[in-house]
Parts: sequence; structure tokens; C-alpha cells
Amino acid sequence: METSVVEQLSRTHYNEMVRLRRHFHMYPELSFQEVQTPAYIAEYLRELGLEVQEGVGGRGVVGRLTIDPELPTVALRADFDALPIQDQKDVPYRSTVPGVMHACGHDAHTAVLLTVARILSENKDQLQGNVVFIHQHAEEVDPGGAIQMIADGCLENVDAIFGQHISSNLDVGTIGYKYGTATGMPDDFTIKIRGRGGHASKPHATIDPVAAAITFCNQLQYIVTRKSKPMEPVVLSITMFNGGHQHNIIPDEVEVGGTIRTFNAETQNVMISELQKCLEGLVTTTGISYDLDYMKGYPPVVNDTDKTDLVLAAAKEISTVSEVQELAPDLGGEDFSYYLQRVPGTFYYTGTRNASFKADYPHHHAKFDIDEKGLTNAVSVMVKSVFNYFEKENGQ
Amino acid sequence: METSVVEQLSRTHYNEMVRLRRHFHMYPELSFQEVQTPAYIAEYLRELGLEVQEGVGGRGVVGRLTIDPELPTVALRADFDALPIQDQKDVPYRSTVPGVMHACGHDAHTAVLLTVARILSENKDQLQGNVVFIHQHAEEVDPGGAIQMIADGCLENVDAIFGQHISSNLDVGTIGYKYGTATGMPDDFTIKIRGRGGHASKPHATIDPVAAAITFCNQLQYIVTRKSKPMEPVVLSITMFNGGHQHNIIPDEVEVGGTIRTFNAETQNVMISELQKCLEGLVTTTGISYDLDYMKGYPPVVNDTDKTDLVLAAAKEISTVSEVQELAPDLGGEDFSYYLQRVPGTFYYTGTRNASFKADYPHHHAKFDIDEKGLTNAVSVMVKSVFNYFEKENGQ
Amino acid sequence: METSVVEQLSRTHYNEMVRLRRHFHMYPELSFQEVQTPAYIAEYLRELGLEVQEGVGGRGVVGRLTIDPELPTVALRADFDALPIQDQKDVPYRSTVPGVMHACGHDAHTAVLLTVARILSENKDQLQGNVVFIHQHAEEVDPGGAIQMIADGCLENVDAIFGQHISSNLDVGTIGYKYGTATGMPDDFTIKIRGRGGHASKPHATIDPVAAAITFCNQLQYIVTRKSKPMEPVVLSITMFNGGHQHNIIPDEVEVGGTIRTFNAETQNVMISELQKCLEGLVTTTGISYDLDYMKGYPPVVNDTDKTDLVLAAAKEISTVSEVQELAPDLGGEDFSYYLQRVPGTFYYTGTRNASFKADYPHHHAKFDIDEKGLTNAVSVMVKSVFNYFEKENGQ
Amino acid sequence: METSVVEQLSRTHYNEMVRLRRHFHMYPELSFQEVQTPAYIAEYLRELGLEVQEGVGGRGVVGRLTIDPELPTVALRADFDALPIQDQKDVPYRSTVPGVMHACGHDAHTAVLLTVARILSENKDQLQGNVVFIHQHAEEVDPGGAIQMIADGCLENVDAIFGQHISSNLDVGTIGYKYGTATGMPDDFTIKIRGRGGHASKPHATIDPVAAAITFCNQLQYIVTRKSKPMEPVVLSITMFNGGHQHNIIPDEVEVGGTIRTFNAETQNVMISELQKCLEGLVTTTGISYDLDYMKGYPPVVNDTDKTDLVLAAAKEISTVSEVQELAPDLGGEDFSYYLQRVPGTFYYTGTRNASFKADYPHHHAKFDIDEKGLTNAVSVMVKSVFNYFEKENGQ
Repeated sequence: METSVVEQLSRTHYNEMVRLRRHFHMYPELSFQEVQTPAYIAEYLRELGLEVQEGVGGRGVVGRLTIDPELPTVALRADFDALPIQDQKDVPYRSTVPGVMHACGHDAHTAVLLTVARILSENKDQLQGNVVFIHQHAEEVDPGGAIQMIADGCLENVDAIFGQHISSNLDVGTIGYKYGTATGMPDDFTIKIRGRGGHASKPHATIDPVAAAITFCNQLQYIVTRKSKPMEPVVLSITMFNGGHQHNIIPDEVEVGGTIRTFNAETQNVMISELQKCLEGLVTTTGISYDLDYMKGYPPVVNDTDKTDLVLAAAKEISTVSEVQELAPDLGGEDFSYYLQRVPGTFYYTGTRNASFKADYPHHHAKFDIDEKGLTNAVSVMVKSVFNYFEKENGQ
Repeated sequence: METSVVEQLSRTHYNEMVRLRRHFHMYPELSFQEVQTPAYIAEYLRELGLEVQEGVGGRGVVGRLTIDPELPTVALRADFDALPIQDQKDVPYRSTVPGVMHACGHDAHTAVLLTVARILSENKDQLQGNVVFIHQHAEEVDPGGAIQMIADGCLENVDAIFGQHISSNLDVGTIGYKYGTATGMPDDFTIKIRGRGGHASKPHATIDPVAAAITFCNQLQYIVTRKSKPMEPVVLSITMFNGGHQHNIIPDEVEVGGTIRTFNAETQNVMISELQKCLEGLVTTTGISYDLDYMKGYPPVVNDTDKTDLVLAAAKEISTVSEVQELAPDLGGEDFSYYLQRVPGTFYYTGTRNASFKADYPHHHAKFDIDEKGLTNAVSVMVKSVFNYFEKENGQ
Repeated sequence: METSVVEQLSRTHYNEMVRLRRHFHMYPELSFQEVQTPAYIAEYLRELGLEVQEGVGGRGVVGRLTIDPELPTVALRADFDALPIQDQKDVPYRSTVPGVMHACGHDAHTAVLLTVARILSENKDQLQGNVVFIHQHAEEVDPGGAIQMIADGCLENVDAIFGQHISSNLDVGTIGYKYGTATGMPDDFTIKIRGRGGHASKPHATIDPVAAAITFCNQLQYIVTRKSKPMEPVVLSITMFNGGHQHNIIPDEVEVGGTIRTFNAETQNVMISELQKCLEGLVTTTGISYDLDYMKGYPPVVNDTDKTDLVLAAAKEISTVSEVQELAPDLGGEDFSYYLQRVPGTFYYTGTRNASFKADYPHHHAKFDIDEKGLTNAVSVMVKSVFNYFEKENGQ
Repeated sequence: METSVVEQLSRTHYNEMVRLRRHFHMYPELSFQEVQTPAYIAEYLRELGLEVQEGVGGRGVVGRLTIDPELPTVALRADFDALPIQDQKDVPYRSTVPGVMHACGHDAHTAVLLTVARILSENKDQLQGNVVFIHQHAEEVDPGGAIQMIADGCLENVDAIFGQHISSNLDVGTIGYKYGTATGMPDDFTIKIRGRGGHASKPHATIDPVAAAITFCNQLQYIVTRKSKPMEPVVLSITMFNGGHQHNIIPDEVEVGGTIRTFNAETQNVMISELQKCLEGLVTTTGISYDLDYMKGYPPVVNDTDKTDLVLAAAKEISTVSEVQELAPDLGGEDFSYYLQRVPGTFYYTGTRNASFKADYPHHHAKFDIDEKGLTNAVSVMVKSVFNYFEKENGQ
């Protein structure tokens, strides 16, 4: 398909895509709790005439546009879960669900992929291969939906895969790409620190788990600053600290949780080992006991060079893409990595930042929003990449 | 009434008192949410033939045994609210309400006072004065029920007041007393620390309120160790630290709460002022903002010397009281202080500790329990104090 | 001796006393390094005609005014060592020794006692007892001079002892006293924290003792706030933290020192045990090793009631003493306690504060100074106490 | 010169080179205090027949081997200052100067360069260019000797420069190289934290600078973990913390120093700005005042590609070089960067690690040592690079 036609089709379906995105935005669902969203997606794909499978790997939806089993097959993936954040934007399409919000852009990913599905299905006579639309649940929460959908067969007969993430770090008009390792290993930890509660006026008669947890969280900083190699990137964020409900009661226990993100197993192991030493020292010093639940996260996303080249070439053809930018690796995790462990592919980024629309808050922020204009680029690059991929595979 | 008769009556009603205590223990109600407890008390007092007033100051119950308005009037007070603690004892009378428990002994206070009411009403012909039974709600949570019940008239025409607290720090057989200042000022604070949330892998793009709150809580230790006078007792306990619900999201805000307890206004003011300096420094260093809600607590309990002498004399007459012990002042708060600001009286302690029954956990502990045998002393001392008081007032 | 005569003599010798105090102030000597000061004192006492013994217990000086061995004997004690502080006052009698200063008032103590010695020796015909003048070295540094001077016989045949300390917490005109326990137990600790040094750009290849020591010092705050009983006074001050000399070298070790002060053995033991737990936890968490040198300090000063009454009565007779004030116990240490373990006596305080002369800096401050006018009270109260003591002992 | 001849000459002079290295090792001199070392070097170079200039830029020594001013000129540089570390090795050539030690290898650098000077001067008939031997003082301490020696003319007429550092991170037989940016910006800071001293038993009457400094140092960890970008390497090491000298005196002030190392100005500026915010917050919270002396360090070493290729080629020719290894950039600083700002060149590393000789302690460690066998590679690579450079420049 000619690039100009691709761009024309993206423009044509823009309003419908925005409607879709806003619909998902208003009715977000948490990871592993998605019900309405996959049903809506399945219905939409069915109306496009695709072969649709629901409940894939739990809550995922797979749409198949099969031209000829002998031809190459490409998968396209979008995730559709939301986050436990209270939407603080003042817009008509604000989340209607208290405490739940699409603060990462998965609403947009889904709208983009449904629009790509519409364009490709409506132009299937031009397709020289098969397309699998993977609408994935639960990207935000370990173990993630990808590994479950793969186990349930979503990659069967798939030869390559593409996925994109919108980005509030890139302006509208920019496409970001990365050869090789693109993301880190996002491990999560949850620690119950158990002391012995009592009256707040008699701390000496208790083992204060709040005080112990504060000491512990403070000490964790030193394993970043003193124990890991300065040249090896590492993030340790304590994102959860919960304990105590009455002013005059020292509670029995506190729960502390967070994430440790690294790029290699050596640093990962240092961090785990030092975290345990902090806990063991805390036991000796304060008398607490603890339960550590350490969950190793998604593996790194490792992009295939050929597939990255393909997307890069496609992006450069799109007139509204003014810049392509090689990105630094990122310590965010992404379970797209599981697909890439099975089939070659690439994961790239579409700019949706626009400071003049206040669409420049960081991902996971309560005021996160996007400039929807950027979504036409997402559609165009993906459609064009599919066509280019088939051309290349078919030796044209 | 002869001491031996008093003791005999306490023994007679022991089983009924234990039944009452265990009933309240099984059905605890949180402060300011008491419904069944005051209804039960009111019904019980009515059956004793007392004049009963419900809803006093909100949820309190007042029973009046009036002999002659010209005679002196003494008030006796027991509190009846419970705590937000999950009962972890393995006994038949374990709390039936998830997360709520009589972990301070108010169940026993109520059972004792109802038993005293039974004895006095059944022997009212021997009374040379009037008795007001004050069953108070909400002692545990500021502003407390006392101030409300007083505003609602519970102390009208009252000349003196006695109150007792059971104690897991005193063995069964011991009565504790204190002349003058007996408790401190239990201030509470709640602080919202507001940062700017974001993705856990990009801390530099956020203002991390968890990290800031950890720094703050740590710094609070220094205002105890460096800013308050070592000779002035002070407790600062951080009892609540809540924020964050997902491993990969740095939250927007964290709530930290606790208590500051002091014995005099100078130290109290130093603590408040230094706490504010910690917060202001935190704003400068980390960029957070905050809301501080500082609630000054109950005033100190100041016992009247004459009334304390009266109780002390009564206690020494009781054969099962093997020891009377002058206590050090305590940093726990007690809204009995409000009654004492209006009428002279005294607040004393009845030993219920018995290590061989595991009745030696600290107050507010999830395994807190009492040796009920100690409750007969509570009844005998209170009944005897009432008679002694009337004798003295009537100049006998 | 008549009180008016005592006061007259104090006034008469005031200029000479000020000369003495300023001389000692200009030539301060550190604890256990005193050479010129004891020589000067000995010479002065000899000129008064006393029997003088030098080198008592090392560097102490004892002067004896013996009237009749059969009569009662009272000892008077003054300490004469200075502190390692750089004098920052701008006065003519400023310390001439760099880094050494009389910042606690021992210069004044010595001048007062020499003046008392002059008055008593010049009026020995009126004395009905013997007087021992104990000029003690090394009060500031454990183990202190007192225990050594006692071992060397300075208390032989002594029946009672008086000592006074000037105070910048009391105005000129005030005498402070305390029955029973007056001071705490001032323990000292010195800790070598040993890591493994290296280049500052490679912390992961080192065990950073600076970082470990910071963690440790921070954790010590919690043993004050969480582990000791709030009603038991305790001070833990870290007064020394020394390690590292070059910007780009992480040192091998750091030395941390300070003091822990308590009033009873139970709290003292809690503090020692918890300090050790902090160190042990630190070993586990960081990999450092350590040497702990914990030096238990002087025992508490326990004043005799009779002797305190005597001084109090004497003070009330002095016209320039406008107020006597019972003091709270103090966490400062004082090796006068060793004398009091052998003979009854009392240790009291003479006000020398005068804000209008800038004589209101705390003791041990680099600008500490006194209003010398207060010293006449010190002389008068001591002389009068000696006469009153003899009168009482001789049954008059 | 044939490679085999170069290697032969390196072997021939090995014993003399070891003698030189051990001599310097036994008599180390601190940065900017070098006296004997430059005198020894100058004498040695003079005996080789070179034109020698002493006192260059203060304490540097420059030797010139001039063949023909029209020919190209290459400079070779070695630094000769030592570190304030107490040598803890047990070897015959142990440092004889208490507290001073060659713990970084500058003794070896000097011995290598003198040996290169000997070989080149004894074979000057084969040289097709001129050589300048730069023996530099004070590499370890900012502002460093390089900038001073350059200002004093040491690079006049120089066309290229080579420098090498021995490395305990590389085995004997390995040569390390790096194209482009090789080192970071090693900034130093020194902070006086001024409180108000006093008696250790009365912390409330002081502003405790030790406690404030502990808080501050602890808070600095968070600017690494929360404020800098995880993908940008940064080191913040607190290497000096000094204050307090007596157990019972809270000092007036404490001095804290350390280093901040970054690779780009953006991160450097974040670190400086956040460090200042920590100090400002500390002022608000604790009442201290402060003096901050922030010294921006050497610029990054940026190696020239051509010159790096030259050294790499030379290394590969040497038979005892078993491996060449491209190194990651390093956060250590090196004032060789100043030479590279003027003339193209490269700075490379020679392996001297040998675990079986205990020559594997990190640089700046008190037991740092080298396997001297590695020094023949240092000589051979340098000599060969000089010949290759001239060949290339002369178009052969």
C-alpha cells in the first residue's frame, strides 16, 4: 500500500479512533480484573469480520485476519489494562471509575490497534500475509498477561511481532526506536515487617515496626549508592509503605513494597543480596521479624535489528513523522519481552507529548494525558510496517 | 457498710460480672460508633431500678441512684469503647468483630461499674448520698466522650468523682494510685506529605513522597533526642504511615500520623515548633508540600489529694488487696481529666496481671487479656470508697 | 564566726580572688596534664601556712589546717582542670593557651577555695575543727582525679565534705541545692568502625566506613526514642566523629565517640545492650567490623540530707543570697560522687549568671564566662557552712 | 625500531626499573609537597644527557630529547605524587614515611617513564622526532599539576601526547584503552556545618552540628537515588567527616567533605543544586549555618581516535601483551585531560594485577601493590608507540 494511502486512511479513521480511546479512558479496568474492555474489543473485532478468540490466557483477546496459511504471519500487540490511580484531569473523557485510570496510555494502544485492524481488514485484498491482533490484558502487574497468552497459543504460526507504546517523553511527530536491549528487569518486592504492637506511650514495651521500617527504607538507599557499581544503572523505588491505623496504637506490622530495576543479572543479584543483608541487620538491631516476597520481573525487551530497521524505514516514509530518535535503554519493564523471546520483532515509541495541551505529565501520573493527534502516526507506522514486512518476506 | 460485707457482695456477683465482661469483650464497638454497648448498659441499669439517660453527649449512658438531693453526690465513671485491633487470643470469649477488640480493658471497667451499681442499688437503704453512674463512650479517640457528656450535664450536682482503670502492669491484688499529676498530654498529629507521583523507574521525574516521608520520620527522632530537655519526659511515636498501592507507581502522597506526649506546655511547644521546622526543611530539600493537622490532646489527669487518700484507705481495708503502690506519672492520656477539672476526684488502677494465665500482654496489644479475679478488688474498692466518702462528707 | 564578719571577709578578699581566677583562666591545663596549676596552688597554700601535700593521686594538691586531731574534720573540694576548647571571648583574661579553656568554671572553683583557705587560716583561732582543702585535678575526664586522690589518702580522718560548682543556669544571688541523687552516670563510648578503603569513585569495591558510621549514628537515635522508658531520663550524645582526610579516598576506618547518661542501672544496661545490637546489625548489613570501648562513668552524686540542710541554712543567712532553689537532678557527671561514697557531704551550686555581662553561655561553650560578683557568695556560703558544721558537731 | 628489540631492551632494563620504582615507593611525597622526588628525577634525566628543566609549573620536571626541531614532537607523561595513606603492606620496599604511600601507582609510572627515557636516549640515532618527558607533580589533588605545567610551557611545540596508568583491575599482560570520553568530572566539596557547642548532657541548649551533619550525609544519599537520572552514572562519596574531640563536649562545628562524579554538566548541575537544597533544608530544620566550598574537578579525559589506534596497534605487536581490552568510562578523575584539551593523544592502562602476589587490592587501598612484571609491557608499548607515531607522521 502506498504511504500516501496509509496516511489518508489514518486521517479518515481519526475521529473513530479518538472515540474509542476516550471510551476506554472513561471505563478503565485494573490488571487481571478486565471484563468490559476485552468484551468491547472482541465485539469490535468481530464486526470487522475477524476470527476472534476471547479469554486467551485468561482475559486476552486475539483477532485473526488470515489470508493464506502459507504466507508469512505478523502479530501486532496492544495492552489494555489500567492503573490504580485517581484521575485528576478535568476533561469530558475523565475516568468514571474511582481510583482507576488509564495513566500509561493503554487506552490509546488499544484504540490504535483496533484502527489498524479496521484498515487492514478493510484492505485485506492488498495483504500478502496474515495478521494476528493481540489485545493483551495485565501488562502492568507481574506476572503479566503476555506469558499467559503465549502459553494459550497466541503466537502460533507467528513469524514476527510489532508493538508500540505512546510516550509523553516524545513530542507528537517523533518515533523512538532502540536496537537490542531496550528495557531492564523490573523486579518487585513486598516485605512484611513484623514487630510487636502496643500503646503509643510505651514504645519500650513494643517492637516498633514503623520505626524499623523507616530505618530499613533509609538503609536501602545505601545499597544503591554504595553497593552497586556506579556505571551500572539501577533504580530502587519504595512505592508502598502501609501500616498503622490509630494514633495511639503502635501496630504489629508494616508492609513495605517497591521495585528494583537493573539491566544485568550481576547487579540484580547484588541488589537482592544486599536487600537481604539490610533485613537481617534489622532483625539483629531491632528485634523485628520479616517476610520477604521478591518477584523477579519481566526479562529485558531485546529488539531484533532487522525488524527495528523495518519500522525505522516505515516511520521515515510517513510525512507527519518529523523525527526518528534512537532512545537510551529504559528501566521500565515491559512484558512484550516474552513475545520477543519467541519471535523476532521490535517495540517502539510514538510521541504524544504536547505541552500546550498539558499533555506532558509523566506516565503513571494522575494528570497524565496525550495529544491524540499523535495517534495517527502510531497507526500509519504500524500499517506501513506490516506492508513493508510482507514485501520483504515475500522477496519483493 | 462493713468491709467484710462489701467483699462478700463482690464475691457473690463475681460470676455475673465475668459474664458481663465477656459479653462486652465478644461484641466490641469502636469509639464514636458504639450502639449495642450503650443500649445494653442502659437496659441493665434500668433493670436495677435506676433513673437512666441515654445518648448523653452523643452515645454515653448515665444512671442515677438518688437518695436525697440534699445529700452529697458522688459520680463513678467507666468507659466502654474498643480499639481497631484484630483479637489474636484463642479463648471462647474472643472478639467476634473482625478488626475490633477490647484491648485496653474498657469491657472490664463497664462490667465492674454495672456490678457496683447492682450492689449499691440493692443496698440503697444504707447509702447516705446519691450516686451517678457515668458510662462513657469514646475514651480512646480525641476529643473523647467525657467533654461531650459533661457539656450534656452528667456532672450536674456532682460533688466528687472516682474512676478506675485495670492494669496489666500490676499483679492481681495490687491497687495503684497517684497524687497530683498522673497522666500527660497526648497530642495527635496527621500529616499529608504531597509530592508528585510517576513511574517507579523514573524517580527523577517525580517528587517522591515516600522517600520524603521516610526522611521526615527519621528526622523526628532528633527532636526527641536533641531538642527536648532530657529531664522532661516526652514520647513521639509514629503509628501510621500509609501510602502507595502498586509496585511500579510512586504515589502522589503519603499520610503519616502519630502522637506526641508531654507533661508540660513548654516541652509541648518545643515539640510542635520543631516538628514544623522538620516539615519546612523537608519542603526546601525535597520539594514536597504538606498539610499538618495537629490535635492537642486531653489535659493531664490531676488527682485530688483528699479523694486519693480516701481510695487509698478503702483499698487498705480490703483483705484481697495485698499491696498499694504509688505509681509514676504516665504518658498515656485519659479524658477523665475533664471531669477532674470540674469536680475533685481521683483516678486509680486495679491490678489484673497474671503471667500464668498469659494475662500480662501490654494494653493495646492484640493478645491483651486480664485475670478476671482482679475485678472483685475493683468492685470492693469502689463500693468501699463510696461509703467512706459519704461518711466523711456527712461528718461521721 | 558571725555571718556579717564572714560577708565582710569575702568582700575584703574579692579583688585577690578575681586576680586568682583570671590567672587560672589565662593559663588553663587539660585534665591529667596539669603542671603549673597545682604548683601555683601548692605555693599559695604554703604561703597561708598550711601543711601542703603535692602529687596526691597523681596531680592533686591537699592543704591541711589542723587545729586538733580530736576535733571533727571537714574537707572542702575544688577541681582545677580545663577543657579542649578554643576560647572565643574577647576579654583581657582570655585563655593564652590555644585550644584549651576554662569553659566549665574550675578556675573559679579554685580561686574560691584558695580564698576560703585564706579566710579560715587567718581566723584559725575561731575554728573548732580541722579543715582539709582538696584541690583536685582531672574532673572532666574519666576516670577522674577524685578516685586517685582518695586512694592516696586525701579523705583520711575526714568526717564530712562540701563542694560547690558555679552555675551559668543560676543568676548571681542564687544558691542551688539538691537532696539525694543529684547527678547521673556519665558513660563514655569510643567506637572504631573498620571497613575497607579505596578510591572514592568505586564505592562498590570498598566497605565504606563513613556511610556505615552515619547509619549507625542515625540508628542510635532510635534506642533513645524507642528502647528506653520515656519516664527515665537518658541522654545519648555523639560528640566525636572523625575519619577521612582526602576527597578522593574512602578511608579504612572512622572513629565515633560520645556519651550515654542515665540515672539507674536498668536504663544504663538497656542502652548498652541496644548500642551493641546496633553495631551487630551494622556488621550484618554493611560488612564492617568494629571495636567498642565502653567506659562506665562516675557514679551518681548522692547528697546527705543533714549536710544539705547545713549548707541551705548557711546560704539563707548570707545577705547577698537572694534565693535558694532546689534543683532537678542533672545528667552531667561529677566525680565528687566518689568522696560522697566515703563520707557524708553535699555538692551545691552558686549562681554566676548575668546576661548583661554576657555571662550566660552554657558550660562547655567557647564563650562561657561568669559574673565574678557571684564568687563572694560561694566564699561566704562555704565559710559559713564550715563554722555551722563545727558548731553542730561540737554540740553547740 | 623492531618490536623484538624494544622487548629486549625492556627486559634488559627491568631490574633498574624495579629499583627505581621501589625507591620512589619507599620515599613517597604528598601532592604539592614533592621535593626529593622531582630532584631525583631531574638528576636521573640529566645523567641520560637530556635537557632538563626543574620547577616547571611549580614542582614538575621536563626532560627534552631534541633530534631536530623540524621533526614532529611527542610528549610522554608520568605523574609522581603520593597519597595520605598509611602503608600496611609487609614488604621490604614499604613506605618509610608515616601516613604517606604510593597507593595509586605513580611510583611505577615514574619508573616506567625514566626507563623509556633511558631506552630512547640511548637509541636516539633511530629517532625521527623529538620527545618531551613530562614528569608531573600533584595529580591527586585539585587543581592538579598538569594545568600549571602547561601554563609554564611544557606543551610548547608538542604535537601529540601519550600517558599510561597502571591498573590493578587488569591482569599482567592486558592493555586497556578507550576511544573518546574515558573519565568523568571529579568534583570535590568541603562543608563546614556550624552549630553551637555545649555540654553533652544538655543537647537542647546546643545546636548539635554532629547530629545535623549525620542528617545531612544521610539525606545526600537520596539525591543520588531520587534526583539524578538512573541512566546517568553518578557517584557521591562522603570521604571526610571530622568534628569533636572530647566525650562530654558537643563541638561547635563539623567538617564534611567528599566527591561528586558525573559525566555531563546536566547531571553535575542537578547534583550541585540538590546538595544546596539539602543544606538549606538543614538550616531550617536544625538551625545550623554552613560554608560550602564546591570545587569543580578536572574535565573529562577525551582520547583522540588516531592516537588510540596507534597505541592499540603497538600493544598488539608486543608478545607479552596477551589481551587488549576496551574499557568502560570511569568516574575517576585524571588531569591528563588538560593536555588532551591542547594536543591530541590518548591515555591508556597497563595491567599489573596478580592475585597470587596479593597485587589485587584496589587503587587507594592501604595494601595496594603491583606485580612489577607488568611494567615491561608499559615500557614496550610506550616505546613502540613513539616509534610508530614518528613513522606515521613522517609518512612512512
